[in-house]
Amino acid sequence: MLMPLLSLLFLTSFTINVFADEGMWTLDNLPLKSLEKKYSFKPTDDWINQVRMSSVRLDNGCSGSFVSSQGLVMTNHHCARGCIDKLSSKSNDFIRNGFKANQLKDEKTCPGLSINRLVKITDKTEEINQATKGLSGKEYKEAKKSAIARIEKECSKGDEARRCDLISLYYGGLYHLYEYENFADVRLVFAPEQNIASFGGDPDNFNFPRYSLDFTFLRVYKDNKPLNNTHYFRWSKSQLKEGDLTFITGHPGQTSRLLTISQLKHLRDITLMNSLFLLSEARGKITEFQKRSSESKRISSSTLAGIENSLKAKKGQLKALQNVSFFNELIQKENELRDRVSGSRSLRKKIGNPWDEIDKALLIKKDKEDEFMWVAFGTYNSQLFQLAQILVRAPEEMAKENSLRLEEFTESRFPQLKQRVLSPAPIYKELETTLFEFGLVKMREALSPDHPFVQLALKDKSPEELAAYLIKNTKLTDLAYRKKLLEGGKKALQNSKDPLIQWAQLIDSESRKSRLFYEEKIESVIDKASERISQALFEIYGTDRYPDATFSLRLSYGQVKAYEENGVQLPTMTQVSGLYKRATGSPPFDLPQSWIKGKTKIAQDTPFNFVSNNDIIGGNSGSPVINRNGEIVGLVFDGNIHSLGGAFGFDDRVNRAVSVDSNIILESLKTIYGQNSLAQEIEGTQKKP
Amino acid sequence: MLMPLLSLLFLTSFTINVFADEGMWTLDNLPLKSLEKKYSFKPTDDWINQVRMSSVRLDNGCSGSFVSSQGLVMTNHHCARGCIDKLSSKSNDFIRNGFKANQLKDEKTCPGLSINRLVKITDKTEEINQATKGLSGKEYKEAKKSAIARIEKECSKGDEARRCDLISLYYGGLYHLYEYENFADVRLVFAPEQNIASFGGDPDNFNFPRYSLDFTFLRVYKDNKPLNNTHYFRWSKSQLKEGDLTFITGHPGQTSRLLTISQLKHLRDITLMNSLFLLSEARGKITEFQKRSSESKRISSSTLAGIENSLKAKKGQLKALQNVSFFNELIQKENELRDRVSGSRSLRKKIGNPWDEIDKALLIKKDKEDEFMWVAFGTYNSQLFQLAQILVRAPEEMAKENSLRLEEFTESRFPQLKQRVLSPAPIYKELETTLFEFGLVKMREALSPDHPFVQLALKDKSPEELAAYLIKNTKLTDLAYRKKLLEGGKKALQNSKDPLIQWAQLIDSESRKSRLFYEEKIESVIDKASERISQALFEIYGTDRYPDATFSLRLSYGQVKAYEENGVQLPTMTQVSGLYKRATGSPPFDLPQSWIKGKTKIAQDTPFNFVSNNDIIGGNSGSPVINRNGEIVGLVFDGNIHSLGGAFGFDDRVNRAVSVDSNIILESLKTIYGQNSLAQEIEGTQKKP
Repeated sequence: MLMPLLSLLFLTSFTINVFADEGMWTLDNLPLKSLEKKYSFKPTDDWINQVRMSSVRLDNGCSGSFVSSQGLVMTNHHCARGCIDKLSSKSNDFIRNGFKANQLKDEKTCPGLSINRLVKITDKTEEINQATKGLSGKEYKEAKKSAIARIEKECSKGDEARRCDLISLYYGGLYHLYEYENFADVRLVFAPEQNIASFGGDPDNFNFPRYSLDFTFLRVYKDNKPLNNTHYFRWSKSQLKEGDLTFITGHPGQTSRLLTISQLKHLRDITLMNSLFLLSEARGKITEFQKRSSESKRISSSTLAGIENSLKAKKGQLKALQNVSFFNELIQKENELRDRVSGSRSLRKKIGNPWDEIDKALLIKKDKEDEFMWVAFGTYNSQLFQLAQILVRAPEEMAKENSLRLEEFTESRFPQLKQRVLSPAPIYKELETTLFEFGLVKMREALSPDHPFVQLALKDKSPEELAAYLIKNTKLTDLAYRKKLLEGGKKALQNSKDPLIQWAQLIDSESRKSRLFYEEKIESVIDKASERISQALFEIYGTDRYPDATFSLRLSYGQVKAYEENGVQLPTMTQVSGLYKRATGSPPFDLPQSWIKGKTKIAQDTPFNFVSNNDIIGGNSGSPVINRNGEIVGLVFDGNIHSLGGAFGFDDRVNRAVSVDSNIILESLKTIYGQNSLAQEIEGTQKKP
Repeated sequence: MLMPLLSLLFLTSFTINVFADEGMWTLDNLPLKSLEKKYSFKPTDDWINQVRMSSVRLDNGCSGSFVSSQGLVMTNHHCARGCIDKLSSKSNDFIRNGFKANQLKDEKTCPGLSINRLVKITDKTEEINQATKGLSGKEYKEAKKSAIARIEKECSKGDEARRCDLISLYYGGLYHLYEYENFADVRLVFAPEQNIASFGGDPDNFNFPRYSLDFTFLRVYKDNKPLNNTHYFRWSKSQLKEGDLTFITGHPGQTSRLLTISQLKHLRDITLMNSLFLLSEARGKITEFQKRSSESKRISSSTLAGIENSLKAKKGQLKALQNVSFFNELIQKENELRDRVSGSRSLRKKIGNPWDEIDKALLIKKDKEDEFMWVAFGTYNSQLFQLAQILVRAPEEMAKENSLRLEEFTESRFPQLKQRVLSPAPIYKELETTLFEFGLVKMREALSPDHPFVQLALKDKSPEELAAYLIKNTKLTDLAYRKKLLEGGKKALQNSKDPLIQWAQLIDSESRKSRLFYEEKIESVIDKASERISQALFEIYGTDRYPDATFSLRLSYGQVKAYEENGVQLPTMTQVSGLYKRATGSPPFDLPQSWIKGKTKIAQDTPFNFVSNNDIIGGNSGSPVINRNGEIVGLVFDGNIHSLGGAFGFDDRVNRAVSVDSNIILESLKTIYGQNSLAQEIEGTQKKP
């Protein structure tokens, strides 16, 4: 499945291939010429407006869409998994058994999940450029942060129902203010069983043919009532066929199609590699942890799914970067751009040599990679430690002027942290102990037992002993205690005898020191240099190119289109019959009871999953696939393996988005799950609930 | 710790750096000029003869040395670990508690461990060249195999007390027959506790300063009596100091300092990477498996130690291959050699273009890497599966003419398989289930659920179900049953209802097909091409170069020599005082009781571990370090991290062997362990036991 928000990075060709359906376009700059030329399609302003207002963003890093006038939202099962998990317990395992709310009152609030809808885009480029003019390093970073915070604040006016993000497009070529409605009351309506939602599990992930029923329905509430909503996508009544024009509207998370060759090498040889070793070991650990008991399995399944998904995605990216001829093409493209810059007196003067500046920053980064990971960013994957760190830092940070705070404590970002601290979702100490121990072991391994930070953090304890002690004795699993600490400020902290709080305090100064170093010597240097590379491109191409993804609303276009794998032509779509053929009865190819029982009832030729050549990436999870008429024809949940391999350049021949067909969603609701009322709501044939 | 037998591969400069103490020299071709010039040392024939006859090889892939007239052998604890493990049980954990035989009758036989001593070297190059003249592909391979088997058989004459290996040096530049005495009765005499033998565990592994007491004493028996032995190393009475000349005699396992650039890239981007992902995940799995119970921990500790050691070693190698400037040097060297070949009409004619032939074979290999790993070689890490496969294949293979058999079933190799089948060492089903399940999961992952082999192997079962079923129901843990099957031949097999035997039969034909393909299309093509590259070098340099390691006896020379780490000068050796300082009390920095109690008794300035710049590699584990007088001054147990990084080229500045000082061995026997009689035997001050 697509990752909700990919932390990894893209790169594509600078020149636009007019034949490829490439690009993640902002809604204020659609490739209208290409659309008209290739597909004879000319979207009206109404069409575009309807797309924008029917598309939503989940603040957990996913996309979704409104699909009824009563606030019904469609997204992926794997996007709602966090919510389903939090609502589950040992006796009510909604992950395993699925979830059905037969009436409105059965719909359950998703703890800590918000949904945003984009209502307005405003250009603020000039304002930001003025604020940062002539500055560099720390000054530049702070001035920009300060200007961004001010603009966002002026926009949101402290209204929790509004969210304002000032985003950088084309690496600072443009700064746009994205204004959202923010819906904080989101409830779970329907989720199928995990076994059918991700049928085929890890082995089938990123593959095709495929049989995943990866959908879930949520509902947005306002004032404790379902949102009364005029903008939503209607359901298509027809079936897709090869060659049909498809649009995907959603929030691709992060691409960096402008990374320099040195950055790509660093990514390939250090960052990706370290990450893959860590994930592989974590996977082994959690698969074995799952054998302790069925409850251990339940509480760790989401963690494991996340690990396996990242692993497969990152392996695909690594493979792409190891492809020699592909890499040589990227080198050639960088050289072309560099030649173009050095060949123009005005560009040379304006751009300078950002590539060398990046190289120098990477040289420092290389030597300190492990330190940044563990000391500066404390990548422990322990929720309790992360909560402790937030609580320890909050009083100190919130006392500072907004622009001087750590980024996650700035006014626009702090509400997310607060939501995490105050989330009622259960935290399982058994799993936490294992994850925290693992983090501490890897930290010691990366830094060596002789590193001062390791000696400070562990003292005379082994990682196993320390993790067991801290997790066992912390009270941070208790929401009331967290609330008390958050509201009690510095004093409550000083008085706290909680060992995890004390430990987070113990390492805080070293951790901040390392993070500051990273931000000043690496991050801001690379940011500024990248902006200048982007500027060079912007000077040459302007907005004929699409900007890198920034978890902001984008539209990609393409068509239903098969591809070849090892010389074999794969089908464009799968049908229900294929699912039953693939179901061996053994995990992860086992069906839930509902589907075993439903075999004779559901039409065997109902379309299941299909592929299209839309340009997407992690963050697009849960995006609707719509047709020319703006009607739902599918639901994106994955890319094929080449969409990862292709992550550093869009290859139309093999890069495919993988979607759940709209027909199987509707059919399964009616036939398998007996959810006629929900089906009618989607079809628009129902009275208001 | 050094790996007993490294499966990974070296590469060094072709030109000899006369200033570096580089090289693993065969005893019939020592670098006498360099030794005399640099160290004014001229070994006599007696000296060389004594070295050869006092050095031994353990058939588990380690080295060792005779250190008394009564067959006493010194090697590493990690080399004897397999034996100590097999002799341990839930109630007698000799890994944890150490092992002391106070009298001869307490010495316990190491199941399945043999020790070899080299008695003669004969040149057979002409004979092999005649036998393979003009042949290629399958014919070439079989002719060579047949000639080798014939020569080895003529030499050993079926005498189990003799072992004859025909080895290829300089990739077929020379073929030498190595004739060994074979000692099959080896008993455990003394082993310290695991905690002190590998003090610092994985975090300290491949690091320095270091405090490992990684030694064990074994004894060779003949006719049920300790071997009466005139050739053995005496113990040095003096202390080493910086700059002292040191020799290391032992059996470096495998180097391939002649790998082509394409082979190195293949190794870096595919083989090493796959291997590291697999090992990382296995590590996570086993660390978590260990938490099930103290017995689960005991039975899996050796497996975990092996995994962690491989992981660290292979990461070091990967890092070296990712070093750009280093890699460019290697490219340059290959280009120089290729130019030299293409610039000489006679070389060109003789050598042809082996580089291109290797490239072509690698192209095929690349696409089938996973298939070879899982289908051809069934890399499941399950002892029971491996036993089943041996038993299934034995009747078919043993009915063939020797040269047509799979290599491990040829006359010279089969005794090792037989020994494995008939070993009384316990096999733990709990661990086996986990390892086999892991293998099957990874197999399905690598090949995909749609691969015909996966469907044949798993049918409708999941890897978890299949592994649990097969391991639970197999009787192969029963030695008597294995013996019955081995002796019963085809008929016994056909009648066996053992599910693991049946499964091994089920996959056998596909497995053999894939292996045959590998041997014909990849292995023999690369072998022949490598031989021609080596021939080119041999034509140019002759025996002025040392040959790649082949687990045959070699001598390396060097000196006690410190090195710098991140600009800091490290000490040459450590002392007991440092051990007590580093002992936090928490694993892996916790001392056994004997050392806690002994703190006041043992002299704090006793030398512990030291570094020297001898050129060694896995297989050298357990090698003695001797001085000019041929006396024991230390015991090799590791290389530093740069010895891995330097694996593809010997870098005198940082590449170091790490050894246990002979003083701490003797002192701990006397002071900590009260083994005065053993100490006297080593010192030669004792009556015969």
